[in-house]
Amino acid sequence: MWEKQILLLPGPTQVPPRILQAMVMQQINHRGPYAQKLYAEIEEGTKKILQTKNDNFLLTCSGTGGMEAAVANLLSPGETALVASIGSFGIRFAEICEAFNVNVDLLDYPWGEAVNPDDIAKRLEADNEHKIKAVLVQHNETSTGVLNDIKAISEARGNHPALLVVDAVSGLAAADLPVDEWKLDVVIWGSQKAFMVPPGIAGLCVSPRAWEAVEKCTNSRFYFDLRLAKKYFEMGQTPFTPALSVLFAMRESLKLMLSEGLPKIFSRHAMYRDIVWAAAEALNLEMLAPRENASPSVTAIKAPEGMNANDIIKGMLRDFNVVVAGGQGKLKGKIFRIGHLGYVDGLDLISGISALEITLSRLGWPIENGAGIRAAEQIIRGRIETGACSDY
Amino acid sequence: MWEKQILLLPGPTQVPPRILQAMVMQQINHRGPYAQKLYAEIEEGTKKILQTKNDNFLLTCSGTGGMEAAVANLLSPGETALVASIGSFGIRFAEICEAFNVNVDLLDYPWGEAVNPDDIAKRLEADNEHKIKAVLVQHNETSTGVLNDIKAISEARGNHPALLVVDAVSGLAAADLPVDEWKLDVVIWGSQKAFMVPPGIAGLCVSPRAWEAVEKCTNSRFYFDLRLAKKYFEMGQTPFTPALSVLFAMRESLKLMLSEGLPKIFSRHAMYRDIVWAAAEALNLEMLAPRENASPSVTAIKAPEGMNANDIIKGMLRDFNVVVAGGQGKLKGKIFRIGHLGYVDGLDLISGISALEITLSRLGWPIENGAGIRAAEQIIRGRIETGACSDY
Repeated sequence: MWEKQILLLPGPTQVPPRILQAMVMQQINHRGPYAQKLYAEIEEGTKKILQTKNDNFLLTCSGTGGMEAAVANLLSPGETALVASIGSFGIRFAEICEAFNVNVDLLDYPWGEAVNPDDIAKRLEADNEHKIKAVLVQHNETSTGVLNDIKAISEARGNHPALLVVDAVSGLAAADLPVDEWKLDVVIWGSQKAFMVPPGIAGLCVSPRAWEAVEKCTNSRFYFDLRLAKKYFEMGQTPFTPALSVLFAMRESLKLMLSEGLPKIFSRHAMYRDIVWAAAEALNLEMLAPRENASPSVTAIKAPEGMNANDIIKGMLRDFNVVVAGGQGKLKGKIFRIGHLGYVDGLDLISGISALEITLSRLGWPIENGAGIRAAEQIIRGRIETGACSDY
Repeated sequence: MWEKQILLLPGPTQVPPRILQAMVMQQINHRGPYAQKLYAEIEEGTKKILQTKNDNFLLTCSGTGGMEAAVANLLSPGETALVASIGSFGIRFAEICEAFNVNVDLLDYPWGEAVNPDDIAKRLEADNEHKIKAVLVQHNETSTGVLNDIKAISEARGNHPALLVVDAVSGLAAADLPVDEWKLDVVIWGSQKAFMVPPGIAGLCVSPRAWEAVEKCTNSRFYFDLRLAKKYFEMGQTPFTPALSVLFAMRESLKLMLSEGLPKIFSRHAMYRDIVWAAAEALNLEMLAPRENASPSVTAIKAPEGMNANDIIKGMLRDFNVVVAGGQGKLKGKIFRIGHLGYVDGLDLISGISALEITLSRLGWPIENGAGIRAAEQIIRGRIETGACSDY
């Protein structure tokens, strides 16, 4: 019964049936009038989700492709980026910079912490010569379940001209990110997270100020060249054949998201976070993130002392077909991650928590069966009664 | 009635209903056991289509992304590639090389001609110092409808160590390309052509000899880094989240293709080419390609003297929803291209030819209505009677 799974990954995420069905459409000419309308509808909807007037360039790739596009289009070889890393996607930004001969000034936080905006302010204040051309940071660090304070990071730039590049792949639409109000120069997003769409499309939301850097940048790029993307965008096209079926899905997803509205979407994700935290704490588990930076998309939970997190993950998969993620890099075996973004609901999480309780008790962790569920139900009940999630 | 279209593009191509339906599957963990099985099945099938023992690395991108991956992984800055260009995708190879600081030795043929293997032999013979590290060439040039003689080009290398990189995006599975027998070092393919799958996935088939170049290459790459691709391939994964839905479609497509078998697939495509040529000649139209290099995937037809090809394309779209492609670059307005690869059949082409006849006569081209159809029917009838296409 492998198809009856409960997918609780921080991406790919579950896809609503009507979005899956939107992909059962014959291919069209990607340079023809119907495609032009498709791109325009997606652009209009995406602008609303990002709360921006900036253009979004659609790329056929994963989120990492979007990160590479940001680096290769903004930073020339020999220029410097301030990479504020709080986990494996932060390190990935640094690796991409190195691959493209960009110098990295690394603010390397312990995994589980958030960026301290004061550190950004200090580094930029000390950079009198304005050698730092861009600050690269995650909105939400998928590997640790930590949400950064992007507003404060943006403000920490003060008068320094560094561009702010935000990898919002796993954070966008789970937590607020008003791009224009917060003055974000480049925001990277992906289809397979809170958009509830299969993977295949990433987007770059580019401010006019970032465009100046793109025009001047001498780094190597072709497939991800935003100058080509812009040239074709203005003709209502993409430079190369895009993953049309994923775009059909995006169009359907945007209809669903905009009819729900951003406030309810954010509130729903905050509830998921609260459900998972309450349950995990009731099971005497510790989270990797501090509560005040807890991600609304994904929660990283430490395995109990002496237990390998991979045994928990394997047990939940084998006995229940509940799919959660493991730790990445140095966190491998130490944590497991429950993704709770996009098309999930409270009862998916109840099921996941039940599978977790049974798995933990079978592995010898002394818990009272049902304790996590009790805590989770209280959160859900509270949300219904206060009307905070009235259409839940 | 825009959904009742006849898509006769050289990509994206029509997708069989069962392949579209294969995409209506919930997402899975792209690093889990079901994904591992999915990748393995695709690898097994793709090897048969490519007639190779070499590994195929799956990339989430268009065919151009695959071309960039070949250049950035094989050629270091300052090294030289011999680019044998017969159309706009040949020029694209040169542009990618330039973007990645690779020197281009360009063999630039008039658009409509095929590569002369003797020219390759001469260039390589003259290169005593073995400065040329790779020969880059198209199997089938989509922009002109010309099929290159890849076997002869491969043999023309003689004892020169240059790698042969073949962009087979629009040629693979339409025309024979036995990768191992012809000693092809890197072959690039894409999901949206003869695989009958939506766009989103490209593949690189890499020989052991090419691997040596990949290991030594110093060019900038991260998302397309084949060293990462190989590392994850060996774990039954891809380095980054792939377009899973397109892979579900690929798996279904390979089942269909392997049950039909390569000889029948090639024979079918040869018939499509013959149908379009016979009809176009009966309508007194001229092809861009010489008959002996005519592509089995796409036919480029010159607009009659004094007529803009775009008017033909627009008329066929407006009055019949028959979608054909225009000319690219310097051929814009001068030719139109009928794609005939993948999930097409003779009657799709009959419909397309009828739409063409009516459009041409309305635009003032003096033809006998039905002349193209008559010629096309004779080809189809002949194929049925000789049993050359017995399950047509």
